[in-house]
Amino acid sequence: MVRIGLDVGGTGIQIGVVDQDGRILEKGSVVTRIDLPFSEQVAQMAACAQDTLRRSGHTLEEVESIGAGVPGIADENGVVIFCTNLSWFNVPFRTEFQKYIDKPVYIGNDATVAGLAESVAGVSAGTSSSVFLTLGTGVGGGIVIGGKVWSGAHGVGSEVGHMTLELDGVPCTCGNRGCLERYCSATAIIRMAKEQLQVHPDSKIMADCGGDQSKINARMVFDAAKEGDPVGEKVFRRYVNYLAQAINSIICFLDPEVIVLGGGVSKAGSFLLDAVRAALPRYIFYKQMPYARIELATLGSDAGIIGAAMLQQ
Amino acid sequence: MVRIGLDVGGTGIQIGVVDQDGRILEKGSVVTRIDLPFSEQVAQMAACAQDTLRRSGHTLEEVESIGAGVPGIADENGVVIFCTNLSWFNVPFRTEFQKYIDKPVYIGNDATVAGLAESVAGVSAGTSSSVFLTLGTGVGGGIVIGGKVWSGAHGVGSEVGHMTLELDGVPCTCGNRGCLERYCSATAIIRMAKEQLQVHPDSKIMADCGGDQSKINARMVFDAAKEGDPVGEKVFRRYVNYLAQAINSIICFLDPEVIVLGGGVSKAGSFLLDAVRAALPRYIFYKQMPYARIELATLGSDAGIIGAAMLQQ
Repeated sequence: MVRIGLDVGGTGIQIGVVDQDGRILEKGSVVTRIDLPFSEQVAQMAACAQDTLRRSGHTLEEVESIGAGVPGIADENGVVIFCTNLSWFNVPFRTEFQKYIDKPVYIGNDATVAGLAESVAGVSAGTSSSVFLTLGTGVGGGIVIGGKVWSGAHGVGSEVGHMTLELDGVPCTCGNRGCLERYCSATAIIRMAKEQLQVHPDSKIMADCGGDQSKINARMVFDAAKEGDPVGEKVFRRYVNYLAQAINSIICFLDPEVIVLGGGVSKAGSFLLDAVRAALPRYIFYKQMPYARIELATLGSDAGIIGAAMLQQ
Repeated sequence: MVRIGLDVGGTGIQIGVVDQDGRILEKGSVVTRIDLPFSEQVAQMAACAQDTLRRSGHTLEEVESIGAGVPGIADENGVVIFCTNLSWFNVPFRTEFQKYIDKPVYIGNDATVAGLAESVAGVSAGTSSSVFLTLGTGVGGGIVIGGKVWSGAHGVGSEVGHMTLELDGVPCTCGNRGCLERYCSATAIIRMAKEQLQVHPDSKIMADCGGDQSKINARMVFDAAKEGDPVGEKVFRRYVNYLAQAINSIICFLDPEVIVLGGGVSKAGSFLLDAVRAALPRYIFYKQMPYARIELATLGSDAGIIGAAMLQQ
């Protein structure tokens, strides 16, 4: 038996046929066309899924289930409630997709799905509980407990990025202030760098962005830190401490076996991981007890397909 | 079959024989004697448990298990790692207790156990996931997922009070800054009241404490708020907003069915509950989705016995 995973993104939809162990057997993709009606978008995805399945050498009879990871949330009936990037609001994804491929269709949040993928076929494989953090434009989360995705009792959980990390802190796009993602995302790194450039315009980062601060990205700041640029180092150190406090909050609350760092910022690799591991102990509450391993995600962009395919009831 | 629950506190140990539905059939208690050796303390508890069992009309053969809720943590071998109030550090509670009553012995954190009690026989009965908050001198937490206690992969979870709520915030007894319990505990209410009295010495609270600020307690502050005292109202409003943000963080992360407010501060009843429920919506991330009900604990001081008795593997 195989499963089909759809990684539904704002620019493209990656589709894969995946075996029971989370290995991708064949891939396909379609461009996201938000100009098309929802039914037409689903028709294109289903056609691509059928084509990818054929190329994998497997048949429809061998397909156990279909999963879709979306940057949004869905209800228990397979209705996508919000998926802003695709302009999907209350669309019956499951029912629509089943018009083309009549198999069980599961839907999960993209960060949740990536966390599931790592727990099945990635760095947290073999663990029973894990929290996955996507450190990107925002901060997403995926919780696995007892080997299963936990999206909450109402499907609104694992929104790690909108936990409060600072009362009355930096205004967030969600309308609150001080949300975790305002301190732990790539966006936060860029904001902190710009703040520092106000008083340290001689930083290497200013040269690297050619004086155009709109070109600053997280990698540029981390690279400057690696090369000993004082602004880069300061922002990196601050970011690491914020992230360590966020991770400590997750440990205090849920105490998973593993916390996995994914998303664009995690591409800094061991430079980030080593610093976070070194910063964490000072915040840990039970200092003599073992606590979650902190690891880097290993599946990269395949996590979306694999995790989606692994979704189940 | 019946179970025996021990609510191990710093001043007394409450012991109860409890039926399968979480009803207390008989109670007993012993005074906590931290001057005694550990083995002697356990001998006294066991003797009281045996006496309480006899008075309940049940026999040892009918006892399914024994549970102890302790203000600390234990490992999977039944060794209490930390229990500062009783000066217990790495003591083999299970083994020692089984010398007297040879039944399965389970140990849980006191807040966890109270949460379990509410989920079996209290306000969150019938729900599958809940988070219990003890709003007292500190803030403790109890997590139930899938009807079972979740204390974490290493037993260090549900320490809600030490999640970061404010970066570089109020110094905490744990050595960190800005821990949640520095804003959501009775201690926080008292601190905020004292801060306000510096600039508003004409407050009713100053009269109520007879000018001795060491006598201020959370109830005094809330009572002043009820009577329209500006300092009382300001502290209450601020406390409610802090607690609402803490609750929102729990919803963002875990999204349980119910969040139960227990502990001393929750004795303010509907005055607190109504205000928290009213403050919460502005912080909620998915504003159009259902989210956790917020409720008051109903079992009071019996929760410790009932929850301890309900502990299982």
